[in-house]
Amino acid sequence: MLYIIGLGLNNEKDITVNGLEAVKKCDLVYLENYTSKLQVSVDKLEKLYNKKIILADREFVESNKVLENAKDKNIALLITGDVFSATTHIQLILECRKLGIKYNVINNASILNAVGITGLELYKFGKITSIPFDNENIKTPIEVLNDNLKLGLHTLFLLDLNPNKNKFMTINEAINYLIKNKIKNMKAVACCALGSENEIIKYDSLENLQKQKFNKFPQCLTIPGKLHFVEEEMLKWYTN
Amino acid sequence: MLYIIGLGLNNEKDITVNGLEAVKKCDLVYLENYTSKLQVSVDKLEKLYNKKIILADREFVESNKVLENAKDKNIALLITGDVFSATTHIQLILECRKLGIKYNVINNASILNAVGITGLELYKFGKITSIPFDNENIKTPIEVLNDNLKLGLHTLFLLDLNPNKNKFMTINEAINYLIKNKIKNMKAVACCALGSENEIIKYDSLENLQKQKFNKFPQCLTIPGKLHFVEEEMLKWYTN
Repeated sequence: MLYIIGLGLNNEKDITVNGLEAVKKCDLVYLENYTSKLQVSVDKLEKLYNKKIILADREFVESNKVLENAKDKNIALLITGDVFSATTHIQLILECRKLGIKYNVINNASILNAVGITGLELYKFGKITSIPFDNENIKTPIEVLNDNLKLGLHTLFLLDLNPNKNKFMTINEAINYLIKNKIKNMKAVACCALGSENEIIKYDSLENLQKQKFNKFPQCLTIPGKLHFVEEEMLKWYTN
Repeated sequence: MLYIIGLGLNNEKDITVNGLEAVKKCDLVYLENYTSKLQVSVDKLEKLYNKKIILADREFVESNKVLENAKDKNIALLITGDVFSATTHIQLILECRKLGIKYNVINNASILNAVGITGLELYKFGKITSIPFDNENIKTPIEVLNDNLKLGLHTLFLLDLNPNKNKFMTINEAINYLIKNKIKNMKAVACCALGSENEIIKYDSLENLQKQKFNKFPQCLTIPGKLHFVEEEMLKWYTN
């Protein structure tokens, strides 16, 4: 059996009770460490689980080596945030189906839930988009923003990251990209470490946010669409 | 302190370890029981928490009575799924801010995460929309669908519910509504009890889904936009 378990957004205790019970009965415990930034040390996870954790990089997960033992053993694959934060995990479930390996998905919170603390209604977000590091000729995030704005919808920009190289795009780099692409005179919500005790949320013009330094990770940026008065009232609390 | 705690989607053990620890130290534990359907009995929650649970209906929550004791006591408000599943919870956080009451949000999975098990990529959903019971003259869900389809995006339809009256819209009623509004010859993903062991997922034409009976709740319906081959491959597993 392969248990695919979301760890949530902050510390070792953001795993669900079901998730913890599953990990405890597993023979091998892998941690997927390339699609997101874990906020807690592997040591702390190991202590809570009383298990050794094996780090699994992209190559390892995509080669389906995680599955090798899952036919006759209980294997856990831990994922920061929720299980469905990346296409690569659907691919893994597909492989389980093809190989006749049983799997059990244990969901958890992701950025898609946690961004609700900004006051922006989750059902008023349009398509989500990512800003990649190498964005010289990339227009997709701008197109998505414009499509969403036309419909009055909020746009969540996820920022690129490479945890293995300890490289994380900052809000400032994301705003640079937007301004370079003529997105100006707009307000945005800058968020750091959502769902954790280090959470930082600021609502201001892109130009003013650009002047601030944000030191907590991961970071993301939202450009709101049409605001309901409750959303507006909540955003006021995040204004300097 | 007010702890606002997501319970996740299935049984009593879908609460996070952090959530459980918070409930255990609370003086009063309320369960919000009107925006979603709890899959587990209140008895089972009480047994896990070793606490008495007080049911809080819409009137009670919106009157801010939950907050009365939160200035000098630890109060928990439990919410099925995630904390930010409804505007009413943002309103509550706003009240905390205004009254100077400390609050702590403990996120969990919601339908927004769990729908990922269909294979549809979460970042390719457009705006989410709800089909209300009383929909004779309601066009918003149709407009949202058409806007999303134009952009190649998936549309998640949430179906109306009234847990106090034990009334839940069925997939069949939702499809009736769509067909009446000239949405035909399209494929959809019908989901029941996502994130639970009773989960049912079917991918077929609206007309064929219409002929099936779905007995597990809550139910939702997704009309996919443009499909990636991995999405398509996963959906095949849900075809009769």
